[in-house]
Amino acid sequence: MENDLIKYLSQHTVLSEDMIRIISERSVIRSFKKGTLLLKEGDPVNECFLVLKGCIRSYMIIEGQEKSIEFFIEEQSVSPGNYGTDIPSEYYLECIEDTIVCAATPEMESEMFGIYPEIESECRKIGEKMIADYQASYTNYKISSAEERYLNLMKHRPELIQRVPQYQLASYLGITPESLSRIRKRVAKKL
Amino acid sequence: MENDLIKYLSQHTVLSEDMIRIISERSVIRSFKKGTLLLKEGDPVNECFLVLKGCIRSYMIIEGQEKSIEFFIEEQSVSPGNYGTDIPSEYYLECIEDTIVCAATPEMESEMFGIYPEIESECRKIGEKMIADYQASYTNYKISSAEERYLNLMKHRPELIQRVPQYQLASYLGITPESLSRIRKRVAKKL
Repeated sequence: MENDLIKYLSQHTVLSEDMIRIISERSVIRSFKKGTLLLKEGDPVNECFLVLKGCIRSYMIIEGQEKSIEFFIEEQSVSPGNYGTDIPSEYYLECIEDTIVCAATPEMESEMFGIYPEIESECRKIGEKMIADYQASYTNYKISSAEERYLNLMKHRPELIQRVPQYQLASYLGITPESLSRIRKRVAKKL
Repeated sequence: MENDLIKYLSQHTVLSEDMIRIISERSVIRSFKKGTLLLKEGDPVNECFLVLKGCIRSYMIIEGQEKSIEFFIEEQSVSPGNYGTDIPSEYYLECIEDTIVCAATPEMESEMFGIYPEIESECRKIGEKMIADYQASYTNYKISSAEERYLNLMKHRPELIQRVPQYQLASYLGITPESLSRIRKRVAKKL
């Protein structure tokens, strides 16, 4: 898994081989079984993650019902809401597959950034990319009908359709499982 | 307006007085009349902004119709989609009030960060806060009905209800102006 981390850092940063070695030596790589909850509503939010293998779902429980918010797969970073603050989590994070992550805490980050400012600089750039991705997802969600959202998902994140249970995908798309099933049939006919 | 910038930097960063002076001396402060377009679909995205006074709306044109995506007021930063990349803008940015901004380009940022890494460090932290804010807005949008979205807006951004034209607010909430009008009447009765 250290190799996956090195691959990620080489592809997503301009860090030197030395810097990449330093990060991978100091990184905490952790494995979790499918079904593990990494974070619960009310927990302090002390860790962020980079998914090396598997899939993490973030969700909330609203009036007793799970609402899937986001899915994070290989090479995506999970910076949970309220990370690094004193405010408890509003979200749950669940491994919906056997999952391996690289985990960091604000203390680890701040120690490493203090010694190696170039690593912080790359993290700033990755953060900017994440802001742009969030903006794009939010915008797409707002301007699309349920069917368009499903077509977007097929186009931009087809792996989620294979890997995520249908009822979780439905709540992610803001629709009922029955609507998702109707949309899938309609789309299949058109293809 | 330089004073507003200094106030923002003192409140949102832990930069020293010296650093704040350096930024405010190098900053480009620009004024625009209400109605000015700062960015159009297809333009290169060369600038990001911090709003010192006024209100900027981002929108897209979908099948001939304006869809309002976001509103940025005092002390909010506008990092337009595709900023700092070669990809042209998909968004419009319009000043919907007389507006004063502090503007930056990737070149200005990179020069300043090269000399003063502590400024980049603060920008990374502001970026993390922006990611958290986007996550929260996106989540709220997904889990709420139109009426709940309006109530959320009343609670968290009441100034928008006063400052933004109703038809723009309606498309921001993902509803028609007629639905917004009905929701307002319903909510007014309950209060």
